[in-house]
Amino acid sequence: MTRSETVSHFIEHARARVDQALERWLPKPPACPALLSEAMRYSVMAGGKRLRPILALSAADAVNGDPARDVVPYALPAACAVEFIHTYSLIHDDLPAMDNDRLRRGRPTLHVVYGDGIAILAGDGLQAEAFVLLAREPETADPDLVRRKLEALRIIGEAAGACGMVGGQTIDLQAAGQVAGHALTLTPDTLRAMHLRKTGALIRAAAVSGALMGGADEAAIQAITRWASEIGLAFQIVDDILDVEGDTSSLGKTVGKDAADDKPTYPSLFGLDRARTMAAECTDHARAIIVEAHLDQSSLPAIAEWVLTRKN
Amino acid sequence: MTRSETVSHFIEHARARVDQALERWLPKPPACPALLSEAMRYSVMAGGKRLRPILALSAADAVNGDPARDVVPYALPAACAVEFIHTYSLIHDDLPAMDNDRLRRGRPTLHVVYGDGIAILAGDGLQAEAFVLLAREPETADPDLVRRKLEALRIIGEAAGACGMVGGQTIDLQAAGQVAGHALTLTPDTLRAMHLRKTGALIRAAAVSGALMGGADEAAIQAITRWASEIGLAFQIVDDILDVEGDTSSLGKTVGKDAADDKPTYPSLFGLDRARTMAAECTDHARAIIVEAHLDQSSLPAIAEWVLTRKN
Repeated sequence: MTRSETVSHFIEHARARVDQALERWLPKPPACPALLSEAMRYSVMAGGKRLRPILALSAADAVNGDPARDVVPYALPAACAVEFIHTYSLIHDDLPAMDNDRLRRGRPTLHVVYGDGIAILAGDGLQAEAFVLLAREPETADPDLVRRKLEALRIIGEAAGACGMVGGQTIDLQAAGQVAGHALTLTPDTLRAMHLRKTGALIRAAAVSGALMGGADEAAIQAITRWASEIGLAFQIVDDILDVEGDTSSLGKTVGKDAADDKPTYPSLFGLDRARTMAAECTDHARAIIVEAHLDQSSLPAIAEWVLTRKN
Repeated sequence: MTRSETVSHFIEHARARVDQALERWLPKPPACPALLSEAMRYSVMAGGKRLRPILALSAADAVNGDPARDVVPYALPAACAVEFIHTYSLIHDDLPAMDNDRLRRGRPTLHVVYGDGIAILAGDGLQAEAFVLLAREPETADPDLVRRKLEALRIIGEAAGACGMVGGQTIDLQAAGQVAGHALTLTPDTLRAMHLRKTGALIRAAAVSGALMGGADEAAIQAITRWASEIGLAFQIVDDILDVEGDTSSLGKTVGKDAADDKPTYPSLFGLDRARTMAAECTDHARAIIVEAHLDQSSLPAIAEWVLTRKN
């Protein structure tokens, strides 16, 4: 196989393991009420890109010093927990009280199918299950692994919490003028601050928690943290570009929504060409970081390329 | 001091330490957006009974074999995490898409003040912060404590999750006929099953996680688990009775709501007298359990009495 075939094979193989694990770890009847289980499954198994969990597995693989050792079983709970959290955030963001989206991954959003109450509960349940999964898997009595599990959980929790993703969504809601008496006007700096929280934090936490569970030492953790910050920003800029240039069918969500909602974006603030250059600069910085850390003989460069050139 | 003065002193002292810790551990600006911090604080510091955190501290104290050792600092993060989770569940339950309550702890509910979007996000943020708190505090490198922290986190997560509290609320929503095509009729057995999930699971997790952080051995954990199951059921029966007999001003929430919503309750299924007897039977069972486990020379019996005789 060529290098690029190996990498695309890595991504496909990782995605398959993630999909299988997500299915296995979703709560099921009779312990979980059937309706709630069905609602959570509808959103989790809707066929997302699985970018965040693949980042986690890729980072775990990149820091693994022992090719004979399969680190995926160690990083898979963190990978799936992040995907549970990402999915819950989409369910809640799509609610009429928030972004009011009716289409997601090419299908009706969860509240359109089951109503707002069940959509709120399915999101709440997925968030709790993410932390349960992190606390439970992999089952181990090894003190170093127990410590790594708790540390990965803290990193993911902080990224998902009030100073991370939920904080970013609060700023987004204020910027959209949806909170009476608390409107915010975004400048380029506050737009960046919002994205760092809203999408950047969880993307970074995915990679860092994966690296941690893959056995990374402190220097590798630092490099992966910086690498993933660049990747998170590139991801967001490309997201904004796709909202202008993409088409609804391949994207699976409503295109042109940012402009319709009058949201500031990288293309609206800097123009399309400059936005494209900014995204490419992020992946250039990302490459330099992992070359310096001797982590470039891995799937990480290809993952960066995927983030930059993706069409959905 | 008499025994009952000592215990009421324990409860007041525990409540003060909990209130202080909740205030300290609420996310604050600039890391957390000001509006979100304000909204979370509005609900957390609304002056609840703090039953769950006091249960956690009481259980930690009861299993502590060394009176010279203050176990509160070990159990306080679990106590406050459970209160964060309890508060988030009230915020979400009160939303128009769920129970549509406008009054809570004597004040307008959060969505009435800040709108549904911010109320959803404040709940989401509090849930995440609960797990962050459990992962972070107390800071320690002691492998036994790290293991206990992770185990307490798993127990609280399972109680809060899809097979616990969120599952119970799903059944409640279905029983109230609020999910089109998925209505449920509650029998006495399914009512009990719903309450075990909706309120019982988190009450039990509060006591068990407190005991765990207080250094409990396996036998004490088992006893506290059984004790707290009885206390949780007594709590729910008394809750139903107060909805019939209490008054809105001392209760701080709308009275008579269960009957108005046509919800099955212990008084509606068994009559008021039998419901009162059932609650007292639970606390009798609870006492027998801790006497057998030699844990009755503690504040646990008084906590049980408080649950049985409370007026709000």
